Amino acid sequence: MTTEIHGNPGKTPLYREVAAKIDRMIRQGSYLPGERLPSVRELSRRLQVGINTVSQAYAILEDSRVIETRPQSGHYVRNGHPKAESRSDASRTKPELTVNSVTLGRTHMEIIRSLKDERLIPLGLGSPSVDLLPVAKLNRMLAAQLRRSPSVCVSYAASNGLEPLRAQIAKRSLDYGCTLSPDQIVITSGCVEAVTLALQATCRPGDTVVVESPVYYTFLNSVQWMGLKVLEIPSSAQEGMNLDVLRYAIRQHPIHACLLISNFGNPVGGLMPDQKKRELVRLLSKHEIPLIEDDVYGDLGFGRARPPVFKAHDEKGLVLLCSSFSKTLAPGYRVGWIVPGRFQERVEGLKSLLNIATATPTQLAVAEFLAGGGYDRHLRAARRALQHRMTEVRKCVMRYFPSGTRCTRPEGGYLLWIELPEQADAFRLYEDALREEIGVAPGVLFSTSDSFKNCLRLNCSFWSDRIERAVRTLGRFAAAQTRS
Amino acid sequence: MTTEIHGNPGKTPLYREVAAKIDRMIRQGSYLPGERLPSVRELSRRLQVGINTVSQAYAILEDSRVIETRPQSGHYVRNGHPKAESRSDASRTKPELTVNSVTLGRTHMEIIRSLKDERLIPLGLGSPSVDLLPVAKLNRMLAAQLRRSPSVCVSYAASNGLEPLRAQIAKRSLDYGCTLSPDQIVITSGCVEAVTLALQATCRPGDTVVVESPVYYTFLNSVQWMGLKVLEIPSSAQEGMNLDVLRYAIRQHPIHACLLISNFGNPVGGLMPDQKKRELVRLLSKHEIPLIEDDVYGDLGFGRARPPVFKAHDEKGLVLLCSSFSKTLAPGYRVGWIVPGRFQERVEGLKSLLNIATATPTQLAVAEFLAGGGYDRHLRAARRALQHRMTEVRKCVMRYFPSGTRCTRPEGGYLLWIELPEQADAFRLYEDALREEIGVAPGVLFSTSDSFKNCLRLNCSFWSDRIERAVRTLGRFAAAQTRS
Repeated sequence: MTTEIHGNPGKTPLYREVAAKIDRMIRQGSYLPGERLPSVRELSRRLQVGINTVSQAYAILEDSRVIETRPQSGHYVRNGHPKAESRSDASRTKPELTVNSVTLGRTHMEIIRSLKDERLIPLGLGSPSVDLLPVAKLNRMLAAQLRRSPSVCVSYAASNGLEPLRAQIAKRSLDYGCTLSPDQIVITSGCVEAVTLALQATCRPGDTVVVESPVYYTFLNSVQWMGLKVLEIPSSAQEGMNLDVLRYAIRQHPIHACLLISNFGNPVGGLMPDQKKRELVRLLSKHEIPLIEDDVYGDLGFGRARPPVFKAHDEKGLVLLCSSFSKTLAPGYRVGWIVPGRFQERVEGLKSLLNIATATPTQLAVAEFLAGGGYDRHLRAARRALQHRMTEVRKCVMRYFPSGTRCTRPEGGYLLWIELPEQADAFRLYEDALREEIGVAPGVLFSTSDSFKNCLRLNCSFWSDRIERAVRTLGRFAAAQTRS
Repeated sequence: MTTEIHGNPGKTPLYREVAAKIDRMIRQGSYLPGERLPSVRELSRRLQVGINTVSQAYAILEDSRVIETRPQSGHYVRNGHPKAESRSDASRTKPELTVNSVTLGRTHMEIIRSLKDERLIPLGLGSPSVDLLPVAKLNRMLAAQLRRSPSVCVSYAASNGLEPLRAQIAKRSLDYGCTLSPDQIVITSGCVEAVTLALQATCRPGDTVVVESPVYYTFLNSVQWMGLKVLEIPSSAQEGMNLDVLRYAIRQHPIHACLLISNFGNPVGGLMPDQKKRELVRLLSKHEIPLIEDDVYGDLGFGRARPPVFKAHDEKGLVLLCSSFSKTLAPGYRVGWIVPGRFQERVEGLKSLLNIATATPTQLAVAEFLAGGGYDRHLRAARRALQHRMTEVRKCVMRYFPSGTRCTRPEGGYLLWIELPEQADAFRLYEDALREEIGVAPGVLFSTSDSFKNCLRLNCSFWSDRIERAVRTLGRFAAAQTRS
């Protein structure tokens, strides 16, 4: 499975074996980030090994940044250790690259539509639970704008958006590793529109776009609609898009754009190390390939620092940074934005042709919230809640799903990617679940190939006994499949 | 017109036709069981028929157990029904037509951008004066929605839009000569987005679209962006698009869609007689050519009856009716809609890909305004004011412009189309005016040819001494050109 910790079985000293066992437990989710591990004494008893052996094992794990020791308290699983995760990645999927025209069938669209059904238990949804949004405050701020600037509210905003909103976004860009000015930003009706504009500004029908695999299904739909082709590059939760494969692909095929999610991506929730982000931007820049990045989950990391965007490494204006407030404030407000770099004039023109401008009142409200609504405080609370809920759903998955199931350990966002044992069929699971009024997003949505037939995406932003029961039901269905 | 209730088309008395319309609205769910129907007086006004006719129609429906009369209260829908409908009619030819790829230069875009400058006297704008909009009331209604349905406001609307809004639009469709059901309507972020979706649903790059000449410049931009070609058909204020030329064009060229403004069009403010509308729909239908109609000015007629839409004559689902509330309620709310006919599934899919859905709060506010905000009363006042201002601006043009100047006499809307003497150059006039901080839209914007070099479009929805002085200045510039 991995590295030093496991070593060579033949000659492994006992403490390494113990360390490997603990490590495995952590990977499997038996001990979750932040959770306390058994005391040295207890483990010594349970594993029937000496106290020194256990101490040495814990020391190795600490050195490897898998666990941490808290004085007077014990040993704890570290938050977000990259190794402490399952992988659905390039090391496994041997790349065989094909450029595909996207022709998604009716089933694909029907699955997507079905998941929006409000009667379903929302494990299949793409949007976060409303209880995590600052509903009352945001609506109050919108109401205040209506009173304060009545005529402005009913009038067209500029096509590139209201200046006060662009100014607030520019201010926050320091957190992403950028130093944007308001003039570089164009407001859109959500992030999906931003991505659509970016694709339209950079590609023409027949062009090839590189995406991650698995890939957010809306990207596949957009690409299909625009008559583009895709080339899927394997992506892992730890490392993001595999750069070696990307390099190989660029040599083999003409590539016209690269489209990916920057942080805590949909569906695998991964976080590419910043050094690799820089490398990816360099690689694409060298070949003059525009990079369209969707950073809609970037504000929802569980760690202390807000992860940077690819745009932070953009020297040539080739990165088009897209985002929105749909995951953190209000999906229904439809307020997103794009920093189109050298494609700015084209994006602004397209936006004004598409729908003239984004709605004015909701732009005003978001600007006001960013300026004085405690956005950061709100984010801290939302992240804490998300991390907690993610942990709970993961625990349930570990408890109720058949052995051999692996799942990601996202360091942000609210989407969990589950890999069932090879023989399982997630589409059948989706159908079984639907009959029980449980929504889940089956792996088939996330690729033009059938590489993820045994995978599922779960939305973990909801948490209740009902969710726990639903996960248990899913586990039961999965187990039934793997037994047969 | 139709069936049992409707009888034999040839001999149908008017009250039966009216009964058939109401019956259809009820079948389609525009009026639900238990819901109150419009009063006899109101329906008489909306359908432009006598009070007796409506009373007789209601009597038939009551006899058929479709509705019931509650003393002192009005007429109400009883319970469900089956059944359907149909319709039809007439024809003439010859000129020289070219199919053009649209390649609008930088100047074109710069003119359009320049006209949005808020410092200019707004004779060049496309949107109506804010003082004609029910700003305070509409904003109050939005604020009330925020209080009443806080979670709904921040959540995604369905891709096809909120049901209460679609229901209100469906109810009003009687006024346009249609009997729409809420399910046939898709909400969009304004009418321009509706038209974009309609073009995308009906055409592929390289296809040819028939438009009026002169044509609303945004249509040319959209067509260019989508890689379509245009074929301009002469259009007059009195008669709309020339059907003989259209017939000839269809014989000469493969045509993939026809795009026009239904009523009080931009720029010539014309109104095609209903008989000709029917004829045009028939002609296109015969050749299976989709008709995209933009009816955004339809509610702003100065006459007593609201003019019907082309959709009213659509038998094959080939008409895509687009409109919005940007000219009558609030451009900044970005609430429009489309009735895509047989292209509905495709339009709904495209809308959800484009930006998932239209913003929720503004949809709720418009629905509320239509349901109980006195939209009709508001429209009556707005039309009166527009007619007055239009008359004043026309008077000024007549007084101050050089002899040989001609201008349209629109029966609705607020756009005046001025034809200067042959030798005048409206682009030079635009430039002269800009230096005096006066905006005017020069004819060059409205065609791919140079047929309208000596024409201007003026927005008459603003009226003040300042406007009068501006028109006088324009007249002076025009006179100087025609003297030289």
